[in-house]
Amino acid sequence: MADTAEASIGVVTPQREHFSEGLMLACGRRLPEFELVYESYGTLNAAASNAILICHALSGHHHAAGYHSEEDDKPGWWDACIGPGKPIDTDRFFVVSLNNLGGCHGSTGPRSINPETGNEYGPDFPPMRARDWVNSQALLADRLGIECWAAVIGGSLGGMQAMRWSLLYPQRVAHCIVIAAALKLSAQNIAFNEIARQAITSDPDFYEGHYLQHKTIPSQGLAIARMVGHITYLSDDAMADKFGRDLRSGDFSDNASGEVEFQVESYLRHQGNAFSHSFDANTYILMTRALDWFDLARDYGDDPARAFADCQASFLVISFSSDWRFSPERSREIVDALLAAGKPVTYSNIEADQGHDAFLLPIPRYLDVFHAYMKRVGAQ
Amino acid sequence: MADTAEASIGVVTPQREHFSEGLMLACGRRLPEFELVYESYGTLNAAASNAILICHALSGHHHAAGYHSEEDDKPGWWDACIGPGKPIDTDRFFVVSLNNLGGCHGSTGPRSINPETGNEYGPDFPPMRARDWVNSQALLADRLGIECWAAVIGGSLGGMQAMRWSLLYPQRVAHCIVIAAALKLSAQNIAFNEIARQAITSDPDFYEGHYLQHKTIPSQGLAIARMVGHITYLSDDAMADKFGRDLRSGDFSDNASGEVEFQVESYLRHQGNAFSHSFDANTYILMTRALDWFDLARDYGDDPARAFADCQASFLVISFSSDWRFSPERSREIVDALLAAGKPVTYSNIEADQGHDAFLLPIPRYLDVFHAYMKRVGAQ
Repeated sequence: MADTAEASIGVVTPQREHFSEGLMLACGRRLPEFELVYESYGTLNAAASNAILICHALSGHHHAAGYHSEEDDKPGWWDACIGPGKPIDTDRFFVVSLNNLGGCHGSTGPRSINPETGNEYGPDFPPMRARDWVNSQALLADRLGIECWAAVIGGSLGGMQAMRWSLLYPQRVAHCIVIAAALKLSAQNIAFNEIARQAITSDPDFYEGHYLQHKTIPSQGLAIARMVGHITYLSDDAMADKFGRDLRSGDFSDNASGEVEFQVESYLRHQGNAFSHSFDANTYILMTRALDWFDLARDYGDDPARAFADCQASFLVISFSSDWRFSPERSREIVDALLAAGKPVTYSNIEADQGHDAFLLPIPRYLDVFHAYMKRVGAQ
Repeated sequence: MADTAEASIGVVTPQREHFSEGLMLACGRRLPEFELVYESYGTLNAAASNAILICHALSGHHHAAGYHSEEDDKPGWWDACIGPGKPIDTDRFFVVSLNNLGGCHGSTGPRSINPETGNEYGPDFPPMRARDWVNSQALLADRLGIECWAAVIGGSLGGMQAMRWSLLYPQRVAHCIVIAAALKLSAQNIAFNEIARQAITSDPDFYEGHYLQHKTIPSQGLAIARMVGHITYLSDDAMADKFGRDLRSGDFSDNASGEVEFQVESYLRHQGNAFSHSFDANTYILMTRALDWFDLARDYGDDPARAFADCQASFLVISFSSDWRFSPERSREIVDALLAAGKPVTYSNIEADQGHDAFLLPIPRYLDVFHAYMKRVGAQ
């Protein structure tokens, strides 16, 4: 199946829904109104029984598959898994992928105008929890006429939203696919996020989040935040394979002045700089906070089996052997809780060297497992 | 043996040696003159055959054991291992612990005055390699009348210096004790160091290293650098045990404003801030560069067994099961190279949850192994 990875959904056009009814949030505040930008791939059938929701991760967005123009040479972030003949087969499914509230790719977020003040929300945009995203996604489902998702699917923070869906709307999720996720973050996970936030907020161009009013962005801080994240997405082995200790140029001893020397340094700086000009700092803080706060079982006496008790979904859980951000042990905790709750669950730990990033990549065994499971999903 | 950990060498006083002869460095530059600050514990015997050299790690210094006054309540950084009845037994050994060149605790470094300009060296202090430290330590040994060290001992970057000693001065090292170290850094190790340097150099108070002239320090950048380091010193489990997901105060949902919430965040910020006011930023850059550049076998056709070929030392190599900065695999590479070179080596991987930091801690099994080996060392 992996050899169909070339097939693409082709050119796609983002769409937009406005929700004048607003949304009550977990923090106690209310968004007076909001917009969600999304893409859809494939065709919704008459019974609306073939709809799939894609939930994105920390730095993701609605553009999960296909291209934005004929000239576009960079496909959506999950093009490996979404398209004709791919695991999330657009010949069979109607796939919806949105930018989450609080994002910076078109949905209402810190860069949007607060209708109550006429100014950008900036740092005053309300904090988001995964449940807020799920609730906003449910309103989008209503708008699209989707009563029950054939599957809700996500990797990393997206997998956390998928699990939360299965708890909050048990009757609206037939299958729940949770990839490279966890029931909650570890202290180490939180610590890495905290360093990223510190890097952003200590950048003098941050201005306590009001950088847009100062016509600047905290690009250095955001670049460092991204570098921290990037290391945690890759395995030690993946970095060794990709860079080793190769020098960027010249000889080792010629260049002791502190210039870039190792390839990995140059790569990280490039990644960090590119990200810092394409992502919003307030959104990055908001997303990492949502990650830190996520704790599936917190409202259920810290018992994840009790949390899953009323779920009606069937589950696929996938982890990757070299993922140290959300290790296979974290996925096994999800599986154990589902088994304890008596829920149907399929689990696969994929041998892969690529670390957390593996969930985005066309790894044949991963695509095969994913594809095989998806044959069970939806009306034929 | 671990129950003797209470014994202390007592009050110690740093000493200072001036070297007007200067030092030729690996980078091709020459330090015209320099000073080394050091402490010694115990008494050198008449044959000068009981001397031990302690090499310090990234943020270490000369104050390895004892106290600086009767009122001092914080002992030296390796007081767990150095003192009467401890593995490095000051009743038997004469122990020398210095602050490395380029440091910020008294030895000549970026905060010292460059005699050629009359100003502080700052960022113009020459880059250091581990071999430069070894050469300066050899001059100190000459000054102290120590022809051959009974043992050269170090953890982490200190272990790298100990190995380099055994290569550069094979006749001057009887035993070489290498704890939680590696033959060279991985791309991931380098990447973490690069983030630390980026955090420092992008702080607007860094002034390209000339912060002292601007009467400031890049405290935010240095704090972030320290936080990055700190996470890599602790294991995921150690952080979970120490902090879990405990909240600092109040309830989870009351405080969605971005204030400190998890204990681990508060701890990291405190550690980062304390460090940023006690350590020099140029030194931190210099030390991380020395780590990145260290590659024991580079001058030996990338063959570590060939590197060790002329060593005359016996080796003790120790690693810790949960250390992911320099994992047990890295120590086993050292052991394999020594075995391939036909050198005597004792290896112990200590089961410990504390990550890289374990080498500083009074873990009973570690102290026992260390103590037992040290009985072989030196004249009785």
